[in-house]
Amino acid sequence: MNTAHDERANLETCVVGVDFGTLSGRAVVVRVRDGAELGTAEHPYAHAVLDRELPDGTRLPPDWALQVPGDYIDVLRHAVPQALARAGVRADQVIGIGTDFTACTVLPVLADGTPLCELPGLAGRPHAFVKLWRHHAAQGHADRINALAAERREPWLARYGGKISSEWEFAKALQVLEEDPEIYGRTERWVEAADWIVWRLCGTYVRNACTAGYKGQLQEGAYPSRDYLAALNPDFAGFVDDKLDQPIGELGASAGRLTAEAAAWTGLPEGIIVCVGNVDAHVTAPAAAAVEPGQMVAIMGTSTCHVMSSNRRADVPGMCGVVDGGILPGLWGYEAGQSGVGDIFAWFLRTGFPADYAERAESLDQTPHEYLTDLAARQKVGEHGLVALDWHSGNRSVLVDHDLSGVLVGQTLSTRPEDVYRALLEATAFGTRTIIDAFETSGVPVSELVIAGGLTKNPLLMQIYADVTRRPLGVIGSAQGPALGAAMHAAVAAGAYPDIGAAAHSMGKVHRGVYQPDPERAVAYDRLYAEYRLLHDYFGRGANEVMHRLRRIRTEASA
Amino acid sequence: MNTAHDERANLETCVVGVDFGTLSGRAVVVRVRDGAELGTAEHPYAHAVLDRELPDGTRLPPDWALQVPGDYIDVLRHAVPQALARAGVRADQVIGIGTDFTACTVLPVLADGTPLCELPGLAGRPHAFVKLWRHHAAQGHADRINALAAERREPWLARYGGKISSEWEFAKALQVLEEDPEIYGRTERWVEAADWIVWRLCGTYVRNACTAGYKGQLQEGAYPSRDYLAALNPDFAGFVDDKLDQPIGELGASAGRLTAEAAAWTGLPEGIIVCVGNVDAHVTAPAAAAVEPGQMVAIMGTSTCHVMSSNRRADVPGMCGVVDGGILPGLWGYEAGQSGVGDIFAWFLRTGFPADYAERAESLDQTPHEYLTDLAARQKVGEHGLVALDWHSGNRSVLVDHDLSGVLVGQTLSTRPEDVYRALLEATAFGTRTIIDAFETSGVPVSELVIAGGLTKNPLLMQIYADVTRRPLGVIGSAQGPALGAAMHAAVAAGAYPDIGAAAHSMGKVHRGVYQPDPERAVAYDRLYAEYRLLHDYFGRGANEVMHRLRRIRTEASA
Repeated sequence: MNTAHDERANLETCVVGVDFGTLSGRAVVVRVRDGAELGTAEHPYAHAVLDRELPDGTRLPPDWALQVPGDYIDVLRHAVPQALARAGVRADQVIGIGTDFTACTVLPVLADGTPLCELPGLAGRPHAFVKLWRHHAAQGHADRINALAAERREPWLARYGGKISSEWEFAKALQVLEEDPEIYGRTERWVEAADWIVWRLCGTYVRNACTAGYKGQLQEGAYPSRDYLAALNPDFAGFVDDKLDQPIGELGASAGRLTAEAAAWTGLPEGIIVCVGNVDAHVTAPAAAAVEPGQMVAIMGTSTCHVMSSNRRADVPGMCGVVDGGILPGLWGYEAGQSGVGDIFAWFLRTGFPADYAERAESLDQTPHEYLTDLAARQKVGEHGLVALDWHSGNRSVLVDHDLSGVLVGQTLSTRPEDVYRALLEATAFGTRTIIDAFETSGVPVSELVIAGGLTKNPLLMQIYADVTRRPLGVIGSAQGPALGAAMHAAVAAGAYPDIGAAAHSMGKVHRGVYQPDPERAVAYDRLYAEYRLLHDYFGRGANEVMHRLRRIRTEASA
Repeated sequence: MNTAHDERANLETCVVGVDFGTLSGRAVVVRVRDGAELGTAEHPYAHAVLDRELPDGTRLPPDWALQVPGDYIDVLRHAVPQALARAGVRADQVIGIGTDFTACTVLPVLADGTPLCELPGLAGRPHAFVKLWRHHAAQGHADRINALAAERREPWLARYGGKISSEWEFAKALQVLEEDPEIYGRTERWVEAADWIVWRLCGTYVRNACTAGYKGQLQEGAYPSRDYLAALNPDFAGFVDDKLDQPIGELGASAGRLTAEAAAWTGLPEGIIVCVGNVDAHVTAPAAAAVEPGQMVAIMGTSTCHVMSSNRRADVPGMCGVVDGGILPGLWGYEAGQSGVGDIFAWFLRTGFPADYAERAESLDQTPHEYLTDLAARQKVGEHGLVALDWHSGNRSVLVDHDLSGVLVGQTLSTRPEDVYRALLEATAFGTRTIIDAFETSGVPVSELVIAGGLTKNPLLMQIYADVTRRPLGVIGSAQGPALGAAMHAAVAAGAYPDIGAAAHSMGKVHRGVYQPDPERAVAYDRLYAEYRLLHDYFGRGANEVMHRLRRIRTEASA
């Protein structure tokens, strides 16, 4: 952020990383030598998330979440030049640009990359838009994909914990086919936004190995077979061959060179290296210098993504996936996740923060989060008498079911907003512990947690995670983890480092062991965690399918 | 409220009814001939409910709820003269005064009626105060009372649905004995507030048949035996003989005549008839002209009390009690209840009504309840995707367990305050249906519901009750049901009517069949009710004792 303290900064080579998040994009200019972040800028998406209606007013059913691809280009136009200006470096010092994206965020385009929603006459067609990662309306399609794969013993299924998610490429594409066949027919490429943005930067469509593996079921060079797809729906038989398959680019490889058009958008020199696309969570592991087996990185924002590399391959029930080189070349990359985390806290503040609390927070010059956190931090473990399930946005791991929903048990007339808030913080920690338990039970040790993402700024939340998981918590040394990770990959693509491990060594940033588990609180949390697990299994594993029935009733009533 | 329209009002005999509620007392001046309410006034209790600390700052544990007896006297001083003035009748037209009270609301006093909390040196002793009906800290004592009674097959147990409540006289007294033996030792009478206020009015302690039967386990002239009490705790053996037993007054009988002191408080003539005490819910049945078997009256306020008379005696599992002549002479009076209803809605508004909603409600000149009701009323049944358990204040019937707590299932990131609000309204309706089902299964038919109390003013809530219970809903024709009922009993005590049935015929007020069940919504609610019952039994009948464990954890953490 500061350019004056080291004059040489202005003479050294830099890379640019751009992180495309859920509500905005962030650009960072990074010094190649040591990872110093010289300038950052953020640009919000004008249309944010479309979950009630399209820009033209067309209503959307429940569980939909769309985006507008033009909003991503606006990030390139605004955030990149602004970060460059703030960094005080000359454009010609920049040797490469790397990007990362939410995933699976996916869109239908023509063979030249034009998004279908930008075509004349299609602005009112929901299926022509980008489906954001948290679009959860394809659960029925995912259920069929899973049931058929299980029935046919498809070899790829175990690599995804036994279930693929409704958030991923195949479920979302099948939904398009079956709900709007015309849009499906006009889709020439079904492309991850992570790859689409690289395509727009360098003019070449390279499919990155990470999303292809984690979100597109590419395992050892093969996708789900034509035969299997035909059994799902005869019209889906050609999906891979016609719309999905594309040459794969390894992480940290070059996808091409910056076009004149993209140079004009960004203010960067035409012809610099554009790195292969990547995923926000996965690029963060090297940004947090967490490149050893057993170092689990939790990127905690609206949702949480857990990524970890290991030299062992195991089929962890309910994980998102294990992909060879999915995070780091030469190691098995594991991914798991929680669909709602910061999103749940934000929802609670939006819907459960009373006017008198708002007034008091304002008079103390605190944000609502800070105010509630202060109140919640004064409590002893269990004092609120509550336990919650953190499934307001479904469950990504280990139940892999986006038709699940939130639960709160234990409310009394004395229950206060700070009580519920704390119970929600804890519920997400219990969710992480459930995931860690699944890894360890499957023989994949998790020795340490490193936390990245916006929620690191809440010390109460961090301490709860240390206490609940009984593990030391490291914190990434950057407020822009994904963007830094994207920039590091650009440095590798541009040849400044031989591989991402070397780049992590020089450019990654972490404060290790910032939060230590407190033994007394850890014991107290064991009791609450036991309650969480009981409710988790009761509502999540079929004993009471009330959540599915409520969702069905809701859908019918809303129809 | 109006005195001009009928000049003869000023010449006719009147009675005064005073209803002592949870937060205030209300007085009404009623014309004996036709029950016309000529003037009303309300006076809030200065100390409201003590649930965090005593007036001197002494902290209270969770689940406590106390009151200050002097606040009741203030109602006599202020509300009665004000109602009289508003009615425009002369004091000498008033021939009697009747009262009703929340129950079981109970206090320790000396033999002359002096409350222990008014004695020097006891102002900081929680057990010296009035225990309000919703004091729920004696659950452990109630559990022991029930377990021992079941073990010994005490004959009275079945008359209370198999469980007595922690709210009642014996559980609360046992708590005093075991937690503050000195206060217990100094207690010369353990008296219902319903009888204490009559004692203060006429100088005579008469124990009313209603609370003695419903809250004191008096059945066919006998209380729980000395032997049984000694087995509970040797020091409790003499509780009935030494502190509780007292001549019983039938409902609608005279307890005595107004003292000079009470005449000075109220502005009423010394020597007029003071009626035997009564309970708010029970006096409301005749006030709503619901004196036939099968007419269930639900008095819906902070909590709901269900009262109904029948010519059949049955042991309904989980009911509050069946008492011979407990509501009307000559019929079996049944009582059931829901510990939290309006209290839950108020709690939700206090803790879950966001600032932007408050602003919009204000700009529409609506109360928060009106605003949320309007939003909730626009939904189809099941559209919110939620189901709640209405146990925020425990469950009075049919589980009889005040250590249960609230549950909300189905929350998503789209869940809005009006969704939760509607789910809470519905949960209380499901609670009422559960009670009706228990009666009918036991062979006591419920043909019609008549609703009284403050919640009648919410038409959405009323319609939900009609739809959920599939029964026509009548509404009491008075905003002051309990006070009117108390006044009617005073008219009987003063000899203006031969019995309460006759008084109900002339003075009772009801609009029958105001809300009719909608067949389509009733079918839709059947599905949600099935979910409610599943969760009801899972959390309430021992399958998962999470609520009890959470409460224990909470108590330990707060210690």
